[in-house]
Amino acid sequence: MQHISYLNKLRQHNPLVHNITNLVSAHFTANGLLAIGASPLMSSAHEEMAELANLSHALAINMGTATPAQIDAMMIAGRAMNALGKPVVFDPVGVAATSYRQKNASDILSAVKVTLIRGNAGEIAHLAGVEWSAHGVDAGHGDDDALAHIAKSCAKKYDTLVALSGATDYLSDGETVITVQNGTPLFPKITASGCLLGGVCGAFLAVADDGLAGVLDAVLTYTVAGELASAGLTDTQSGTFYTQLIDALGTISAEDVQRHARFCVL
Amino acid sequence: MQHISYLNKLRQHNPLVHNITNLVSAHFTANGLLAIGASPLMSSAHEEMAELANLSHALAINMGTATPAQIDAMMIAGRAMNALGKPVVFDPVGVAATSYRQKNASDILSAVKVTLIRGNAGEIAHLAGVEWSAHGVDAGHGDDDALAHIAKSCAKKYDTLVALSGATDYLSDGETVITVQNGTPLFPKITASGCLLGGVCGAFLAVADDGLAGVLDAVLTYTVAGELASAGLTDTQSGTFYTQLIDALGTISAEDVQRHARFCVL
Amino acid sequence: MQHISYLNKLRQHNPLVHNITNLVSAHFTANGLLAIGASPLMSSAHEEMAELANLSHALAINMGTATPAQIDAMMIAGRAMNALGKPVVFDPVGVAATSYRQKNASDILSAVKVTLIRGNAGEIAHLAGVEWSAHGVDAGHGDDDALAHIAKSCAKKYDTLVALSGATDYLSDGETVITVQNGTPLFPKITASGCLLGGVCGAFLAVADDGLAGVLDAVLTYTVAGELASAGLTDTQSGTFYTQLIDALGTISAEDVQRHARFCVL
Repeated sequence: MQHISYLNKLRQHNPLVHNITNLVSAHFTANGLLAIGASPLMSSAHEEMAELANLSHALAINMGTATPAQIDAMMIAGRAMNALGKPVVFDPVGVAATSYRQKNASDILSAVKVTLIRGNAGEIAHLAGVEWSAHGVDAGHGDDDALAHIAKSCAKKYDTLVALSGATDYLSDGETVITVQNGTPLFPKITASGCLLGGVCGAFLAVADDGLAGVLDAVLTYTVAGELASAGLTDTQSGTFYTQLIDALGTISAEDVQRHARFCVL
Repeated sequence: MQHISYLNKLRQHNPLVHNITNLVSAHFTANGLLAIGASPLMSSAHEEMAELANLSHALAINMGTATPAQIDAMMIAGRAMNALGKPVVFDPVGVAATSYRQKNASDILSAVKVTLIRGNAGEIAHLAGVEWSAHGVDAGHGDDDALAHIAKSCAKKYDTLVALSGATDYLSDGETVITVQNGTPLFPKITASGCLLGGVCGAFLAVADDGLAGVLDAVLTYTVAGELASAGLTDTQSGTFYTQLIDALGTISAEDVQRHARFCVL
Repeated sequence: MQHISYLNKLRQHNPLVHNITNLVSAHFTANGLLAIGASPLMSSAHEEMAELANLSHALAINMGTATPAQIDAMMIAGRAMNALGKPVVFDPVGVAATSYRQKNASDILSAVKVTLIRGNAGEIAHLAGVEWSAHGVDAGHGDDDALAHIAKSCAKKYDTLVALSGATDYLSDGETVITVQNGTPLFPKITASGCLLGGVCGAFLAVADDGLAGVLDAVLTYTVAGELASAGLTDTQSGTFYTQLIDALGTISAEDVQRHARFCVL
């Protein structure tokens, strides 16, 4: 599997990404999507979910602070996108933390055929049914073979793509596993860096002819942008990193991504 | 028509602006209003709309991510402000995108006498009943005569002021049209730049003795602040621009605005 | 009373702080808590309040933009934390402004035993039942003896700790009053600086063996971080201050706090 670049195509097509996301990440996600060249739209009003599906090129649903009404909106929107054959990204934030979140994730995954599940190790492990130790909505730690197994199992179980985010990212379609080594320790120091990546994956899936290749390029572009943004920063300068990440998402070129990409097909 | 400066008066009076706004822009709007010298307040709890109208000097309502309950709050608050003769700014975000948004805008404009409608070309054109091509909640493109006509028609139709934002801004009271040439290509690269302008217009209307003059000074102050904030930045540094725009809204003086203002009364 | 430093312990224990907060401050609060070394979690879904209490080390409730459903969530979560003996911080944003907010604060304080009330002078005065002049959700002004009296009275009345924020901070347990002189005029120029402090107090209370000492160290750490962040800035550079405050919360050491701390036990 080779790296295919979709960044120029994304910027030409300017895909409209409908986000049903948490109240912590809404502003950052919108700014990050605008920066990279997509067009963000946020709404969880049931009344307009079907019409927004007609307009949108991708849907990114994130259950970080979801109320039951928002979960319903995600299912209505997700089914509408399914009917139109458009990509749906699902971010199961903190799914292992409470039975409420477990039920929400289960309801969503039963009702909607998702194109990609993006989460941290604890979240993907929970969905895959593998034991894992987590801390609230944070990730937890584990070894690399276990993580590759978790990503692949989750993808196979739900017949979907998986992007497991962490110091190393693990991408899988249930057969292939790809590891991405790019990134920066500053990513987990800012809130919503994973939430924004979910939206970014949606934007790439909207323009990619191959799903796994689209997710690979999304993750490479995002993590290389993080590396460029963190140049010269200490690991505690998360405020400055936040600002420079938005800049880097706008400034980064397909050539930058290719030059810095460090990934491995297992 | 001459340019009248209200910035010093605004900073003396520190008007309280009640915002019922979308979840993407809430933080940015509050910070921007504080920076320029106003006092932001956010609430959509029906229970306190009437009392907040007594306290507030302006109301800015923005339907970017509104639920039906929030639309109701906007109407309750708007009518309370009308009864007190205080200014109401309405931002019809994405009104052309879905029938839900069209109904919401129509309900608000029937129930509330708005002082100013602030939106992009696609939104104002839709309200005016003029054909236009939009892309989700973004603006679309068109020629200048058409835009002046759209702003004027919308103002006349709803007997209100209109601020149509874009590369050139078009302000109208239904008779006069004023174009403002200030700004920067970085404005559409950050989310909620229009939403914040709606709040800023509310703050200026709270202290202005003439509505159109107040909106003109609000738009000039905001767009000149954008120019100052973007000095030395490339068109992709939207993260840095976001930060510097907040700084510039605090630093800008009435003299800065006068020195840089480029507007034309048609 | 001596200053005890809990910052290193906080960073070792990485306490999980559950925030039920307003939509303006959610993102900033999450980023600030991450920066200082805590782990933020946001939710107001009634269904998971009890389980989140089991996971969390502190709860911070803030009624800035609360709907009735969110107020209910605060009471459910607060009682669950009470039952587990875990700290609860309450931020009565704008309580003096409307009867709706007065009822909400009264309901919360009746239903939940709060560990700390954090607010500005106007809010704490209102809860203490002392006359005060406020302006919307902003603080108002008054003399120092009056403020010490207000903080102490409020603490005594509700049998709780109080942190009254302003140019000088007043901390009290109903007996002792401590004044903190650290800070910067830029704090009131950014929105949600008080809201974040509420969350930060929760994180310190989660690891402190003494409540008042924990709140003192929280306020010193936060206000000294503000001083470090504002070095070289003018009083209007609130955008840059916002970014540098997040950096400073990550960079600040226990030694920095000790070196710069200016407090006085009355």
